[in-house]
Amino acid sequence: MYILVINSGSSSIKYQLFLQHSDQPVCSGLIERIGQDNGLITHEIFRADVAQTLKLEQSIKDHETGMQAMAGLLTREDIAMIDNAAQIGTIGHRVVHGGETLTKPTVITAEVKEKIMALYALAPLHNPGHIKGIEVAEKLFPAATQIAVFDTAFHQTLPERAFRYAIPDKFYLEDGIRVYGFHGISHQYVAGAAITWLKDPGAKLITIHLGNGCSMAAVSGGRCIDTSMGLTPLDGLVMGTRSGAIDPSVLLYLQQQKGYTAEQLTGLLNKQSGMLGLTGYNDMRDISRLYHENDPAAKLAYELYAYRIKKFIGAYTAALNGLDALVFTAGVGENDALTRELVCRDMEFLGINIDIAKNQLREKGLRDLTAGGGRTRILVIPTNEELAIARECRRLGAEGH
Amino acid sequence: MYILVINSGSSSIKYQLFLQHSDQPVCSGLIERIGQDNGLITHEIFRADVAQTLKLEQSIKDHETGMQAMAGLLTREDIAMIDNAAQIGTIGHRVVHGGETLTKPTVITAEVKEKIMALYALAPLHNPGHIKGIEVAEKLFPAATQIAVFDTAFHQTLPERAFRYAIPDKFYLEDGIRVYGFHGISHQYVAGAAITWLKDPGAKLITIHLGNGCSMAAVSGGRCIDTSMGLTPLDGLVMGTRSGAIDPSVLLYLQQQKGYTAEQLTGLLNKQSGMLGLTGYNDMRDISRLYHENDPAAKLAYELYAYRIKKFIGAYTAALNGLDALVFTAGVGENDALTRELVCRDMEFLGINIDIAKNQLREKGLRDLTAGGGRTRILVIPTNEELAIARECRRLGAEGH
Repeated sequence: MYILVINSGSSSIKYQLFLQHSDQPVCSGLIERIGQDNGLITHEIFRADVAQTLKLEQSIKDHETGMQAMAGLLTREDIAMIDNAAQIGTIGHRVVHGGETLTKPTVITAEVKEKIMALYALAPLHNPGHIKGIEVAEKLFPAATQIAVFDTAFHQTLPERAFRYAIPDKFYLEDGIRVYGFHGISHQYVAGAAITWLKDPGAKLITIHLGNGCSMAAVSGGRCIDTSMGLTPLDGLVMGTRSGAIDPSVLLYLQQQKGYTAEQLTGLLNKQSGMLGLTGYNDMRDISRLYHENDPAAKLAYELYAYRIKKFIGAYTAALNGLDALVFTAGVGENDALTRELVCRDMEFLGINIDIAKNQLREKGLRDLTAGGGRTRILVIPTNEELAIARECRRLGAEGH
Repeated sequence: MYILVINSGSSSIKYQLFLQHSDQPVCSGLIERIGQDNGLITHEIFRADVAQTLKLEQSIKDHETGMQAMAGLLTREDIAMIDNAAQIGTIGHRVVHGGETLTKPTVITAEVKEKIMALYALAPLHNPGHIKGIEVAEKLFPAATQIAVFDTAFHQTLPERAFRYAIPDKFYLEDGIRVYGFHGISHQYVAGAAITWLKDPGAKLITIHLGNGCSMAAVSGGRCIDTSMGLTPLDGLVMGTRSGAIDPSVLLYLQQQKGYTAEQLTGLLNKQSGMLGLTGYNDMRDISRLYHENDPAAKLAYELYAYRIKKFIGAYTAALNGLDALVFTAGVGENDALTRELVCRDMEFLGINIDIAKNQLREKGLRDLTAGGGRTRILVIPTNEELAIARECRRLGAEGH
């Protein structure tokens, strides 16, 4: 039997197929530009360490068309990974927002779907796409168990002092306005890997997920106690195109003095800010090159980016009253030596001391960048959200749900 | 000769009178409800350790009427502190916002007034009242040198990584949107006192000003390197009625989903949030009493309040790469043992260890609450913004401006 992992967005679907008991995917793919005539499917198959990639451009009018094309590729004679759809026993769906009620991986029922839909107002860019993906998967793979894994779930252990805002109670009680946090599947995955590697289930960890979106989590004994994103993925760190934390009065100032609308501010802070807003680039490889060419905008952007991370490390060290390991993960965290170096510079007081030479090496898998004398381990752990979801499906299957 | 210190708000004026070379005020007062028929003047005089208080209720139609009444009290025969207005050689004005150009105490000229007025959009609640106070003082005390001391000035040493937001450059370059920070006169005053007491000009300090407004500063070698308020005094810590930091998307959510206007949000976040929003009370003495009665709202509010401070301590310890002393100041910081205890609890990793018994004592002046074994000094230093302003006037006078 197989496990299919699906991450269905508003106009794209990512997928990976795993053998029931293996951590290695046998194929993966991306369906883009759903709803457009120039839809694109990238399908990769892995056989004995050889990867083969197919690119198909075709009209993909909706999620159902896209997922039918995917099912076709999985069974297409020349590249077939499975004989028929019934071999997929479980489908694991990534769901960004589970709110306060969906706090662990869950078999999808009508009630679960209703709860995911009830969160549309809080996750307008994500949850509607997830529901589409789930409903098409139910139709195309009726024999499979559908499971939802939530990006907010890992953060549901936050104490109230960390998840509440200092605004009147009714906004929490009636409208659900609180810190939810995101990237939870990733934070949980790398925290688990760090705990295993450290052989210390009680370890005090700070996990630093730096991709296009960026967030951090403070983890004590495997439980998340604080995280940098808030009600939405806008808050906290500086990101590729998002501002991260900003004085809320900036929004009021721009509205009252400069005539911005809430819609314009949503676009400005989510799409045109962050590293893009400061440098004109959004890919850290470009900005890193400019930094090394002494470009002043790139210098400032990197310093802001790293300084914000540094301050969260300090804040979470205070929250944890200690620190055993920092864990860098995701695209930038795994690959950008400059970010890691700037973050760890001048942090000896907190026991952080990075080995500059090791930091420059590009190796696969878990890496330990701790210099001699550093009390705090500095780890790089590649994240793997799809595998984390597949494992949850396996675990839930073994428990007979 | 005398120095008169004035803090002129939109509808109130605070003042204190100092002998030219003394740190002890000879009188102080508060003019309230300017523009109303039931205006109130509270005037206190200090003679050989005996304080005498007068309360006068009268119509105060504008700042000029109020300040004339003050001048009258200063020379009123039975309680006269000075013989005539000409004995006031210097008037020191507190000015909240000096922007990027007014970065130290300055003799007020037409150009300086223009600069203060140019900042009205950034400080609409404060700078207009200051200008009124300055112009009336110029009229009533034409022989005096008028000096402005700025609440933002101490924070002008922040590096760019600490004062910039991750939004496109033009908002900084064209609109001046950046972190300014406030309470600078207080942070500078207590940091100076701590440096003197520690006998260490290079000390790494975190100053924690907790009044109705709350802010923190990271100070290295007497220079401020970071602070918790931002473009406005709304950002950062939880305060009496202000929310402090909040995911900017909360504002967008309330506007887009709940129909709030920018004006309503300004009121909500500045006047109805913070401790008031969480508990219904805004005076920490009430909330502390409720906390000890195990009131759940008061418990949560205190925990949020203290936790936010704790995280800034960690963040600034990272920014400073060390920490020699914490300094608590202002109404709550000086008087509320519960806040100090909650903030310092479980912070041994950062070298913070408070003496619980000493923390309960109510003594005047600088207090050291460090427990045995604490690497970081925990100090309480009463702030005195009026004295700080008087000293700047004295210093500037001695330099012949």
